[in-house]
Amino acid sequence: MTQTSSNKNRPPSTVRRRIVALAGGVGGAKLAQGLAQILPPEDLTVIVNTGDDFEHLGLYICPDLDTVCYTLAGLANPETGWGRVDETWNVIANVERLGGPSWFRLGDQDIATHLERTRRLKGGQPLSQITKDFCKAWDVKHTILPMSDSPVRTMVDTDEGELAFQEYFVHRRCEPKVKGFRFDGVEVAEPAIGVREALDSADAIVICPSNPWVSVDPILATLTPSPLSLRERGWGEGKPVIAVSPIIGGKTVKGPAAKMYAELGIEPSALAVARHYRNILTGFVLDHTDSKMENEIQTLKIETLVTNTLMNHLTDRARLAHDVLHFIGSL
Amino acid sequence: MTQTSSNKNRPPSTVRRRIVALAGGVGGAKLAQGLAQILPPEDLTVIVNTGDDFEHLGLYICPDLDTVCYTLAGLANPETGWGRVDETWNVIANVERLGGPSWFRLGDQDIATHLERTRRLKGGQPLSQITKDFCKAWDVKHTILPMSDSPVRTMVDTDEGELAFQEYFVHRRCEPKVKGFRFDGVEVAEPAIGVREALDSADAIVICPSNPWVSVDPILATLTPSPLSLRERGWGEGKPVIAVSPIIGGKTVKGPAAKMYAELGIEPSALAVARHYRNILTGFVLDHTDSKMENEIQTLKIETLVTNTLMNHLTDRARLAHDVLHFIGSL
Repeated sequence: MTQTSSNKNRPPSTVRRRIVALAGGVGGAKLAQGLAQILPPEDLTVIVNTGDDFEHLGLYICPDLDTVCYTLAGLANPETGWGRVDETWNVIANVERLGGPSWFRLGDQDIATHLERTRRLKGGQPLSQITKDFCKAWDVKHTILPMSDSPVRTMVDTDEGELAFQEYFVHRRCEPKVKGFRFDGVEVAEPAIGVREALDSADAIVICPSNPWVSVDPILATLTPSPLSLRERGWGEGKPVIAVSPIIGGKTVKGPAAKMYAELGIEPSALAVARHYRNILTGFVLDHTDSKMENEIQTLKIETLVTNTLMNHLTDRARLAHDVLHFIGSL
Repeated sequence: MTQTSSNKNRPPSTVRRRIVALAGGVGGAKLAQGLAQILPPEDLTVIVNTGDDFEHLGLYICPDLDTVCYTLAGLANPETGWGRVDETWNVIANVERLGGPSWFRLGDQDIATHLERTRRLKGGQPLSQITKDFCKAWDVKHTILPMSDSPVRTMVDTDEGELAFQEYFVHRRCEPKVKGFRFDGVEVAEPAIGVREALDSADAIVICPSNPWVSVDPILATLTPSPLSLRERGWGEGKPVIAVSPIIGGKTVKGPAAKMYAELGIEPSALAVARHYRNILTGFVLDHTDSKMENEIQTLKIETLVTNTLMNHLTDRARLAHDVLHFIGSL
């Protein structure tokens, strides 16, 4: 069955659907915000990549988790895609004056998040509990969970050797050529408190338009040490798993996903993303720009929805979330 | 010989005098700034109390050291006596929103100092080297040294039990009644790199108008585990040691010194301060308000200088420093 955007003219299902969304940074946060506009708080759990987390200036920083929380709280900086709106930069300017590292741009309000998180982690609180408390303080009603309370670190194998993710991503601006990825610690990291329960009670998983290699794969690897375990628990068979392509017309809206595909010898495309997730995918959402790939994706036994996947404004996010939920209802 | 402020009409000595000043926070910083206005950089070393240092929010904070550095750099907040001028408070406001501790008011610029210092300490740099680098970045020409590169922690014995200094001073606002003091770690703490050399080449020691119990005693205890060791090295005999009273008319300009004297059963006065330091003191500087105590101080075999010791403005600081240097020249 082929789903198209004309589906959105069908009456929406009145069946309650509990959704688990898997998200990285900006793209993931945007769709999560769209879903949060439609679903009641008890029906949406966002599980966020923590493979990008790192320690810097003695602070424990969770870039993706903060982007998702700030976005759902309405505190995100819409210009940069990271950090806080109405931000000031007095701390980092003075660290720079003292000769300290300033390549990772930390705003003053953002530093408060890292300082208080670091203080609580050192006191023994799990990251999931800290995130819950922070969301309450920021008036975020939907549940946001880190993928794990234990450290999992995305390491990027490049032509200049293996680099820690932020070293590759921010400090080196994704310049070194990618050869592969490793999720350090994933063998022993358990899913965070609440993750298993959210999955067990969910009706569908939505893989947000985040980087497959470094945003979603770390989550999948943490949830299921073997790529088949989600399958074994019924996901992708009876229980739908939907992915939204982060690649439109061979390019990414933001971030290095397309560059990574190319450097790994794979033509970057919506089709490549569908193939990436094929083991667990029930349905795939791609942009009108890429509608010519629809048939080939269907040959992978994956249902498709062609729609507008660009999310520039808040209304785009709700519209795409609506399309995705409708698509899930039709499967 | 009795010195009075009329001495300042004598021609100033042209002999070069190298001064080591011992300083705590605000009062010490003010006189240090006065001395720095008169003495060339190579002739002034300020040794600063680090007994107040503590870890908070994961940051290594040196309140007295920062007050002295900020003051000599022209970056100090003249209103509060601590922290930076033109400060913003976005970090601590957001820490507070997240339910974190906000009782110790850290400004954004100030936090940069603590973040970068903590980062360097964790990297193995000694506090004296970090302070040297920071002073260079802040364009401070005179030498500022922490009393020790090792932790010494002032513990306040009170009627509510023993409290760490900042817990007593900031969190409890000096409310618990003082019974005594202990400088944790002083038995093993060596003077910081550069302290011995500064003392060996100095012509006089100036004890700034800082709290004798919790600002100056920790320095003296670190320099000389036995109170006689400064004596044994000639200090107070051939080599003058001068103290400036932090108590004027039975009160302190700032801080709890007078309250501490009273709670320890000693009437707070300039005389009490002179008695406090009597083992090592050559000369004592007291305010006109307390001139009636001059004779009794002289019976302790301590020379006296009566002058204006209040330092409200930059010119007051230079004038008092001038008087102190003149006094030293006359001994």
